[in-house]
Amino acid sequence: ALDADAVAICTSTDTHVDVMVAAAAAGRAIFCEKPISLDLAEVDRGLAAVEAAGVPLHIGFNRRFDPSHKAVADAVASGFVGDVHLCNITSRDPGPPPIGYIEVSGGIFLDMTIHDFDMARYVTGSDVDTVYATGAVRVDPAIGEAGDVDTAVVVLTHESGAITTIDNSRKAVYGYDQRVEAFGSGGIARSDNFHEHQARLGNADGFGRPPLQHFFLERYTTSYLDQWTAFVTALENDTPMPVTGADGRAPLVIGLAAAKSRAEGRPVRVAEIG
Amino acid sequence: ALDADAVAICTSTDTHVDVMVAAAAAGRAIFCEKPISLDLAEVDRGLAAVEAAGVPLHIGFNRRFDPSHKAVADAVASGFVGDVHLCNITSRDPGPPPIGYIEVSGGIFLDMTIHDFDMARYVTGSDVDTVYATGAVRVDPAIGEAGDVDTAVVVLTHESGAITTIDNSRKAVYGYDQRVEAFGSGGIARSDNFHEHQARLGNADGFGRPPLQHFFLERYTTSYLDQWTAFVTALENDTPMPVTGADGRAPLVIGLAAAKSRAEGRPVRVAEIG
Amino acid sequence: ALDADAVAICTSTDTHVDVMVAAAAAGRAIFCEKPISLDLAEVDRGLAAVEAAGVPLHIGFNRRFDPSHKAVADAVASGFVGDVHLCNITSRDPGPPPIGYIEVSGGIFLDMTIHDFDMARYVTGSDVDTVYATGAVRVDPAIGEAGDVDTAVVVLTHESGAITTIDNSRKAVYGYDQRVEAFGSGGIARSDNFHEHQARLGNADGFGRPPLQHFFLERYTTSYLDQWTAFVTALENDTPMPVTGADGRAPLVIGLAAAKSRAEGRPVRVAEIG
Amino acid sequence: ALDADAVAICTSTDTHVDVMVAAAAAGRAIFCEKPISLDLAEVDRGLAAVEAAGVPLHIGFNRRFDPSHKAVADAVASGFVGDVHLCNITSRDPGPPPIGYIEVSGGIFLDMTIHDFDMARYVTGSDVDTVYATGAVRVDPAIGEAGDVDTAVVVLTHESGAITTIDNSRKAVYGYDQRVEAFGSGGIARSDNFHEHQARLGNADGFGRPPLQHFFLERYTTSYLDQWTAFVTALENDTPMPVTGADGRAPLVIGLAAAKSRAEGRPVRVAEIG
Repeated sequence: ALDADAVAICTSTDTHVDVMVAAAAAGRAIFCEKPISLDLAEVDRGLAAVEAAGVPLHIGFNRRFDPSHKAVADAVASGFVGDVHLCNITSRDPGPPPIGYIEVSGGIFLDMTIHDFDMARYVTGSDVDTVYATGAVRVDPAIGEAGDVDTAVVVLTHESGAITTIDNSRKAVYGYDQRVEAFGSGGIARSDNFHEHQARLGNADGFGRPPLQHFFLERYTTSYLDQWTAFVTALENDTPMPVTGADGRAPLVIGLAAAKSRAEGRPVRVAEIG
Repeated sequence: ALDADAVAICTSTDTHVDVMVAAAAAGRAIFCEKPISLDLAEVDRGLAAVEAAGVPLHIGFNRRFDPSHKAVADAVASGFVGDVHLCNITSRDPGPPPIGYIEVSGGIFLDMTIHDFDMARYVTGSDVDTVYATGAVRVDPAIGEAGDVDTAVVVLTHESGAITTIDNSRKAVYGYDQRVEAFGSGGIARSDNFHEHQARLGNADGFGRPPLQHFFLERYTTSYLDQWTAFVTALENDTPMPVTGADGRAPLVIGLAAAKSRAEGRPVRVAEIG
Repeated sequence: ALDADAVAICTSTDTHVDVMVAAAAAGRAIFCEKPISLDLAEVDRGLAAVEAAGVPLHIGFNRRFDPSHKAVADAVASGFVGDVHLCNITSRDPGPPPIGYIEVSGGIFLDMTIHDFDMARYVTGSDVDTVYATGAVRVDPAIGEAGDVDTAVVVLTHESGAITTIDNSRKAVYGYDQRVEAFGSGGIARSDNFHEHQARLGNADGFGRPPLQHFFLERYTTSYLDQWTAFVTALENDTPMPVTGADGRAPLVIGLAAAKSRAEGRPVRVAEIG
Repeated sequence: ALDADAVAICTSTDTHVDVMVAAAAAGRAIFCEKPISLDLAEVDRGLAAVEAAGVPLHIGFNRRFDPSHKAVADAVASGFVGDVHLCNITSRDPGPPPIGYIEVSGGIFLDMTIHDFDMARYVTGSDVDTVYATGAVRVDPAIGEAGDVDTAVVVLTHESGAITTIDNSRKAVYGYDQRVEAFGSGGIARSDNFHEHQARLGNADGFGRPPLQHFFLERYTTSYLDQWTAFVTALENDTPMPVTGADGRAPLVIGLAAAKSRAEGRPVRVAEIG
């Protein structure tokens, strides 16, 4: 038996649920990397085991712990933004992963946009009702041949009435681009990127700054660390997990609705999925 | 007869075409404020008269002359941005107009978003193929009672494959918010707002700046001036008008498609409209 | 006799005092461009005539009306900055004037830095006790041959104990550079420049912005307008002039102390001058 | 004997030279924290021992490795800035150290400004000829009672003709403020601070950002790491140390000149010190 209070599930996605069920049976608190599974029935099997065992479960949507994005969510939660009317999320990688990865990724909506679906729920504080998704192959034809897109736009209508736009690209040559904006009756809150450093050079042609931080290891170092602190603190204090099993399930459902929307060329209600 | 080389049509929208036809018949160059008309058949009647008379016609989409937005369009035209993959337009007014204005405005897509439809064509350099539009009444219930929305999101698919997102609100409490972003294989170009001034105050609570410039009179002073210079220069040099009759017609068609999309809850091809 | 309520003295500097004396004798309110004179005795003759006549006098230190600099001064006056400990002023022109102008300018401290001496008094709200000035010829040897410097640094010690640094250059290739910073026990307030427009372009090499606004006509348009409004408003309401004769005299004395400091290589007390 | 290739001297300042002499005698490469000593004769004794032993010596002026400041120095070294005319350094701590520390610190010029003296040499690439320093007690009277100042301004004239201004404060309530600016015939290069995060909140009152990173542990994490990498890389490749013994000695001499300047109220040539 494991001589530990908690189990961190960081294995490949298709093994998450089996490990989760075993860890729950062993009575361990669980930290599970996202996504729980690409298969909704599997997700439900895992969450049922966790619920039956009554063990704490945290899902690793680390971006919620990025201080800049968190400040946006806090500005909504505190009432500063007022009623949220619009939410805009830009999420672009510096370059695409290998085609072999693309082929088993579940598609851009489950692999990449899933973070943004979580961010939309986190920032607006409201579940999603309807999804409209479109996409294109603009970065690499091989991604299209693998049945996926590399450029995507999604519109979410939330239960609160807020509308979220998400745009994704697999390749932003100027660095990792991660921005979240919440706009409402009271004001606006926006997170922006860090550049590589804070020097600016100017001459008669204008002023220049360096590119953005390269990728997630640079941008989200703090959020990974803070996520673990939050998980351990919640365990020690016996308080609710920061990101629940339901929070892990919802973005998968939205992602499945997005894929269906793009395939059928129409808005899809989340309730159609499950 | 008019003792003038050119006629500027700045009357109320429903009179534009009659004046345009008369000015064309009189052989005058024409500067016509946007929109030409809210009725597509009327637009075509006006443009036909202009074409028959062979007079120069410029449509007053002044925002093309804003130095910041123009720099974005120039960065696309010069090849800096590369193939355009995504375009994001945020356009929010500081406060809604009177309900009486809303009632005769033709709706948010023909009154407000029409500028953004023009901007999307201008910046990407590509016509629009498909429109998906959604909207909500979040600012003032009276706007809904007038049959309109005050908050809107539109997704445009261009003939080039580029995808544009537009978000609108009738009320941004922090000032007039006008941003355009073009993203592509070569890089990114973004226009941002000016604040009221360039002072920043900082203490232990953080750093503060003033609100954005209040509204279009402040933000677009330069663009209005530069538009007139461009019109007169084109007349004097006998070069093509900066914004053509076709440029004036296209955003109306997109706007009609957007209204249809929202009404029917589905993406609408521009070709369905005319 | 002049059929006017007020006289604006915008003639060449060496004629200011004669016009001022005549206008005072005629009982007119006076708007006098800075500097009143390059000769302190002349200044005193002019101010004595104004005082004897009891007419309102405003000196045209227009930069006090720049909204960004004014916000810094207001942040001090309101107490936000607390006790002012440091003030930093950067003032750099895009290019030097003709040598013929340099020769009659009175030298950089009376021609260019005089604005910054006024700004230091305006922002800190405290008179100057001691001046240390140094300079160099770095931009154009002809300026040195004319007996002047084109690059200068001045340190002011105020009666309040605040210390101001000023740096000047006759040539900043990236545009007109006008910044003021007040730092104190409560916080900081800084004014910065506007760029030509608000677009930013980014690619793998980094992000770029346009140069700063070119020169004073672009940067200080608002301040010139607001200064006239303030002058006329004060006249109409019979309230004190925004920039008094004493405010016009003090920077000249500081400038003379600066010139003496540089010549003698030592800090000079303002009381040594007059 | 030490079983090591290199010795890192991180003990209290008054023990540096004894350890340095012993390490040199043992033939070890040396990494010595700054300052080498507060006593110039002691510095010279240590450097003589290092020279006699022929061992590599690096002095821990870590700020040279801050990516933002380094980008400024690189912009000068590459010729982008052209001939350097002006250099402005702002260096302000978030709060003063304990009085007990102040009493043994050697005074603000040797404890705090010494970093800026090093930065001025590093960025401009030129040695210092003359120093003018002034200061005041504005933060805490106890610092004055300990014979020190807590607010200081220094003007350096470099051998190249460049002029540097430095301003220091022991207390900036908005966070650690570390900025360096080099201005010259070709342009400008400026380093600025990072804020705690990159979110901005806006409403009708304006826009807000969080305070600056709190202190040197946050701001200079990267520079401490990169400094060690540079030291080890230089050792492994047998290339010159990044910051030499001469680089460690020069700021002390400038600091002693600054203290003398403030005490005597006059500019002091570095050659007067040694």
